[in-house]
Amino acid sequence: MMLTDGLFGDEELGGVMGASAQIAAMLLSEAALARVQGRLGIIPKDAAQAISTTAEALHPAPASLTEPTARAGIGAQAVVGALKAACGDDAGWVHFGATSQDIQDTGLILQLREALSIIEGRIKALDRVLAIKATDHATLPVPARTRFQIAAPTTLGAKISVWRAPLIRHLDRLAELRPRLLNVSLYGAAGTGAALAPRMGEIRAAMAAELELDAPSIPWHATRDAIAELGGWLALVTGSLGKIGADLILLGQSEIAEVSAGTGGGSSTMPQKSNPVAAEALVSLARLNAGAVGTLHQAMIHAQERDGSALALEWQTLPDMIIRTGAALRLAYDLADTLSPCPARIDATFANDRGAMMAEAAGFHLSRHMPRVEALKLVAAALTEVAASETETLVGALSRLAPDHDWHTLLVPAENIGDAGSAI
Amino acid sequence: MMLTDGLFGDEELGGVMGASAQIAAMLLSEAALARVQGRLGIIPKDAAQAISTTAEALHPAPASLTEPTARAGIGAQAVVGALKAACGDDAGWVHFGATSQDIQDTGLILQLREALSIIEGRIKALDRVLAIKATDHATLPVPARTRFQIAAPTTLGAKISVWRAPLIRHLDRLAELRPRLLNVSLYGAAGTGAALAPRMGEIRAAMAAELELDAPSIPWHATRDAIAELGGWLALVTGSLGKIGADLILLGQSEIAEVSAGTGGGSSTMPQKSNPVAAEALVSLARLNAGAVGTLHQAMIHAQERDGSALALEWQTLPDMIIRTGAALRLAYDLADTLSPCPARIDATFANDRGAMMAEAAGFHLSRHMPRVEALKLVAAALTEVAASETETLVGALSRLAPDHDWHTLLVPAENIGDAGSAI
Amino acid sequence: MMLTDGLFGDEELGGVMGASAQIAAMLLSEAALARVQGRLGIIPKDAAQAISTTAEALHPAPASLTEPTARAGIGAQAVVGALKAACGDDAGWVHFGATSQDIQDTGLILQLREALSIIEGRIKALDRVLAIKATDHATLPVPARTRFQIAAPTTLGAKISVWRAPLIRHLDRLAELRPRLLNVSLYGAAGTGAALAPRMGEIRAAMAAELELDAPSIPWHATRDAIAELGGWLALVTGSLGKIGADLILLGQSEIAEVSAGTGGGSSTMPQKSNPVAAEALVSLARLNAGAVGTLHQAMIHAQERDGSALALEWQTLPDMIIRTGAALRLAYDLADTLSPCPARIDATFANDRGAMMAEAAGFHLSRHMPRVEALKLVAAALTEVAASETETLVGALSRLAPDHDWHTLLVPAENIGDAGSAI
Amino acid sequence: MMLTDGLFGDEELGGVMGASAQIAAMLLSEAALARVQGRLGIIPKDAAQAISTTAEALHPAPASLTEPTARAGIGAQAVVGALKAACGDDAGWVHFGATSQDIQDTGLILQLREALSIIEGRIKALDRVLAIKATDHATLPVPARTRFQIAAPTTLGAKISVWRAPLIRHLDRLAELRPRLLNVSLYGAAGTGAALAPRMGEIRAAMAAELELDAPSIPWHATRDAIAELGGWLALVTGSLGKIGADLILLGQSEIAEVSAGTGGGSSTMPQKSNPVAAEALVSLARLNAGAVGTLHQAMIHAQERDGSALALEWQTLPDMIIRTGAALRLAYDLADTLSPCPARIDATFANDRGAMMAEAAGFHLSRHMPRVEALKLVAAALTEVAASETETLVGALSRLAPDHDWHTLLVPAENIGDAGSAI
Repeated sequence: MMLTDGLFGDEELGGVMGASAQIAAMLLSEAALARVQGRLGIIPKDAAQAISTTAEALHPAPASLTEPTARAGIGAQAVVGALKAACGDDAGWVHFGATSQDIQDTGLILQLREALSIIEGRIKALDRVLAIKATDHATLPVPARTRFQIAAPTTLGAKISVWRAPLIRHLDRLAELRPRLLNVSLYGAAGTGAALAPRMGEIRAAMAAELELDAPSIPWHATRDAIAELGGWLALVTGSLGKIGADLILLGQSEIAEVSAGTGGGSSTMPQKSNPVAAEALVSLARLNAGAVGTLHQAMIHAQERDGSALALEWQTLPDMIIRTGAALRLAYDLADTLSPCPARIDATFANDRGAMMAEAAGFHLSRHMPRVEALKLVAAALTEVAASETETLVGALSRLAPDHDWHTLLVPAENIGDAGSAI
Repeated sequence: MMLTDGLFGDEELGGVMGASAQIAAMLLSEAALARVQGRLGIIPKDAAQAISTTAEALHPAPASLTEPTARAGIGAQAVVGALKAACGDDAGWVHFGATSQDIQDTGLILQLREALSIIEGRIKALDRVLAIKATDHATLPVPARTRFQIAAPTTLGAKISVWRAPLIRHLDRLAELRPRLLNVSLYGAAGTGAALAPRMGEIRAAMAAELELDAPSIPWHATRDAIAELGGWLALVTGSLGKIGADLILLGQSEIAEVSAGTGGGSSTMPQKSNPVAAEALVSLARLNAGAVGTLHQAMIHAQERDGSALALEWQTLPDMIIRTGAALRLAYDLADTLSPCPARIDATFANDRGAMMAEAAGFHLSRHMPRVEALKLVAAALTEVAASETETLVGALSRLAPDHDWHTLLVPAENIGDAGSAI
Repeated sequence: MMLTDGLFGDEELGGVMGASAQIAAMLLSEAALARVQGRLGIIPKDAAQAISTTAEALHPAPASLTEPTARAGIGAQAVVGALKAACGDDAGWVHFGATSQDIQDTGLILQLREALSIIEGRIKALDRVLAIKATDHATLPVPARTRFQIAAPTTLGAKISVWRAPLIRHLDRLAELRPRLLNVSLYGAAGTGAALAPRMGEIRAAMAAELELDAPSIPWHATRDAIAELGGWLALVTGSLGKIGADLILLGQSEIAEVSAGTGGGSSTMPQKSNPVAAEALVSLARLNAGAVGTLHQAMIHAQERDGSALALEWQTLPDMIIRTGAALRLAYDLADTLSPCPARIDATFANDRGAMMAEAAGFHLSRHMPRVEALKLVAAALTEVAASETETLVGALSRLAPDHDWHTLLVPAENIGDAGSAI
Repeated sequence: MMLTDGLFGDEELGGVMGASAQIAAMLLSEAALARVQGRLGIIPKDAAQAISTTAEALHPAPASLTEPTARAGIGAQAVVGALKAACGDDAGWVHFGATSQDIQDTGLILQLREALSIIEGRIKALDRVLAIKATDHATLPVPARTRFQIAAPTTLGAKISVWRAPLIRHLDRLAELRPRLLNVSLYGAAGTGAALAPRMGEIRAAMAAELELDAPSIPWHATRDAIAELGGWLALVTGSLGKIGADLILLGQSEIAEVSAGTGGGSSTMPQKSNPVAAEALVSLARLNAGAVGTLHQAMIHAQERDGSALALEWQTLPDMIIRTGAALRLAYDLADTLSPCPARIDATFANDRGAMMAEAAGFHLSRHMPRVEALKLVAAALTEVAASETETLVGALSRLAPDHDWHTLLVPAENIGDAGSAI
């Protein structure tokens, strides 16, 4: 529990990735294993039914399992211990032929499946609201800023479409990575299924079907590419939202304030301020996940058939990455939903710019009437006049330097936005 | 140039990602743009032809472009400058309507396409040699080691199949990410294509076709998910190879030495040593790329329509990641190709273990004849006898404690390898 | 709360860095500020006393402050709000002239001071137990292993002394960084102290004295080098402990098992196993802190006079780093305290090596009697004989090849350990 | 060689950390070792002299050493090989009793010492120019901006003093870390000095004296805290410069442009632009070093007496970190040296703000005449009037709402800058 949980936490995903849910997911995995083994005649039917019922009804207090987890170095062993204790005489048939990591990982995958479903829903919701905003402001001219300088006009809708585009790609990526990730684990101590040979493959497939997962034939105990890929995907999502945050911070500066989004945070001593709290948080969450993804990749260097030092890197990194992704999507939705342009401030930007951002447009127009090099010289001369004065505009300067063109009409920003007016 | 280039460098990929190739790729992009614009009547046909010919023949010394690159903060501007200088009167039609980043990024994509093709070829070659080795040693029993302890038997072939499985997934991932990555960039200063409106989309599509790339309608100047995704993929590849390296280091320790691979490095003072140089390098390369992928994700937080501070993170990170991936694949191939088991050492491991690694098998066998809890107690008692003596074996102890079973036959490792005998 | 808290958590440091302690530390800071301002006549004496008393008695539930924290983007504002609410008519004199970050940071420093004191104590305790172990085993020969190969003899005491040396340096570093870190913050909204000018410096110094901190004249609101330095120091500590963990993992492998430390974790299915749970955790904790230190350094790029997106990186990173450091020290102490050599296994290593690790010693001895190049050739020839046989020893081979030397005496490991016998 | 070398490279430090300098430093180390061993009678005096002379005159082409380096996995072995080849009959006395890493590390320390001396000089030079600028602009009011919003007035000098403060701390840190870093390595194969026992300590001390380094008694082959500490320090330096870069980017935005520094980069298509190339590069360099420091900390988890996979992380990370630090200092110097305020733009900011940033000052003034809560309400009312109008100022609104105060005088920014007017 942290003071900042309202910002960087996420109640729903915190629940899905929390200790109680983790225990429940492992118990569900054991229940499924027992049922399948009962059905296939691997363990007695009665024992199977009893184990399954007991497992699904068991809710050990997480705090009661931290000590055995610390002793074993893996939570699954503590959970299996609790289940065995609850199963009495059937204890011998609990976890039959499985290894701790089988259950640890199958449980994790069940948690991740649920988390990804929530995250997917939030991406789609965010995308929908951004799509509406992109349409609403499709033709509203605002300056594009490149390298922190006003460049040339675009539209607010085009900016929002740029934010949307990666979200759609993230949904594609999610669809692609799911089948690599959503797998049962049931390979036994050495990854060979020897304890239940030659029926381990059959049991694994049945358990996978029970849990609606896949069941690859090669163990993934020690090859963790799907986990690292997932971490990368989460960081891609928060990275894209971090870009939105950075843009909103910059667009919301006192001197620009062209777009408002969310409710600004107040200052403890300066009543005029409206801090971009949520937008800043998007940047922070993106940087935190970017750092964590590096750590998660370190976990791929996994020794031999099982490496506790590598596994723990996943355990200590992945839940926070999920929660941060959820928090970022929640904050981004609120920002997107309340996003609105401040026309007066946008007008002021165009007025203060005095047409300098139309220089490229002017150059291209003139290039149709004179050699390009001369055209650019002429525009540069006009810009010099604009810069030297406090009131001169590019239209004014060009009207003097190249009077044969209707600069008033030619350099209207809204007429120089290219494709920006058409949303995705 | 570093002393370690023979280990951590890669001549072929170093060439593809080097400054000369980068310049050439940008010039190819400009040439394609000019040809397309000539064909579509955007610029004069003659100028287009001249620019295309000049661009493809131009080879400015990289060193001559570092100063203008430093001034502009982007290499493309220096390259465009050199091309304009070489084009004389046609200079005005060079880079027409494009922005520096369009060319910087299109050139980068051409380099990356070539690099990925080389890397893909190397993954496939490595996979082929691993497939042969997996088959060759499919049934050779070796101990599985979990959490740095001997666990239960598997086979060398099964170990190698575990190494292979992620490589195949990496090829799938590559096929999926390519269409997101291999895109032309041609969106102009503000990302709107305003300079060449309303024909920018048409020109972009034609340029993409010329370069055999795709042409998304939304600019990707400032949304860099495809680049970060690529970095993640490279780190996945080196991570999987790092796992092979870690395994070979551990399998090659003086006390184990069950598998040899590659030529060991000699010591400057200890003649008996054979250091696992290449295997260590695989681990190093994996950790380096894991670190770099975090930095690359930081680059996703890209301000507004163009952010030089974020872009430079990509420039300074991605080429090294590509080269490291190439180096790791080269080293891994050599290791895989020369991998061979040392039967005498494997035998020694089994002998020294005195059957302890068969404890799980013994327990499962006994469970078919008595309650599981009793079975496990009996095995534990036998293990205690093994541990207390320096010569007792599990077969011996069990033969005394449970004489009704043919332990000699039951606990043969090769008969207790489950699915491990069948390669992928 | 995580299942793994018993391993990767730390109750004592978790408390010091937790939300309740954070709130208390901020309230202590406000109390000190009020007392000082009362004494100096900045605010009414009665109000000062009332605020101080109220602040020190106030214990708002952390959960009640998450929503206002999320709104403000900084916990201090929620805490100040709660304090004002509790102070009734004196509310106007609460937090007088301070800015939220002043209190946020001063509170943080109070927490860190306590955490560092605990951590320092644990480093010293660990150092003491390692010193005893180093002395106990100062002359016990064990093989040194370089690049995962047996190299030449050292002693167990020397290995432990190598572990100790950085701990002593870490204590020096801590003494050096403390004065840079343990500072009050009281600079006001713009870092100028304008609200209480010209007396802000005087108030700051008095508040610092009250809290036994220092009071630099330049605000550190936006220059976070002391925080990043602290993070680096924590990662240095866990890095050094991670090295101990890596060594213990490797020394404890089934095939080596020369040293035991801690209680091994059992397997859920393999009764013979004893997993190096705590040693693995040391490696994990080191890698986690190594990853986090990179994120913390990203927080140094702090915009202008206050940057919420950078600050939050600290908030979300530093407490975990502290807790991990505490956990690692706790685990390392337990391992060190229970560390003991297994003489039989060490003897076995020397026996299996058959003297190969004495090759360097043999070469140096012979070099005193013949040209070094010839000496090395002779040793190489002997090593070839050792390698070709399954029983030959280096002493045996050399006794044949260079019979004039008393190899039995010359190549006793305990006589070839150089300085290793003398602990730090 | 990269196109961006003019920005992110550093010729001087690139030289110091380059392959030729690395070879030379290792040869210097061998020369010193030989001289010392000759003087102490460990090796023949003539051989010592010949080796020393040969080593100092030898300049093997780096490219000729990459293949033997790749084979050995460590450059020192290739260098020693080249030296032995050049020493003919004296070859047997080259590198006598040392191990490759002794020379690899001693050479590295010689390179680092030189690099740190250059970096220290640049920090001092930067500090001097910043001190001048801080004095020059000590009393020039500019707005402080907190969380990307205008907060309250400070001065440009105060901003610059904030930049300076960490530089001074970095110099202190450098002085502290140097004795931990600048050590000779001479411990032999197993870190025991056995080959030259009992005289290794004496030789090591003499070699250290020869090279003006220290000689700790415990080997640091495998405890790399001083290297990781150095990496952290480099990242602290670039982090502090990255903060300057971020500030200059933000101060230089088109809409603010209150401070100019350096020569802006031009756009390839927008003639009006002046991109903050060097300031952006400072941010990039800081983020790159922040990422690298995490990787360097991973290298602390160093197995046993020597771990090639960990060592290589240092080799592939540290030189770039040094070079980036040098580049950042070079760029920062140029920016600082050319930094100048744009009074017209600063005036415009104050004008556009219409006094809102004086709200805190107004509140504190009123608090001296009425209960604080009422004072704050009154200021809030005035701010509402300012916000509702396009021309109203805080002075104007307050003059109506609280006419008994001379707001024109009270709210002059230059009179409300607290301590900001006094530089460090």
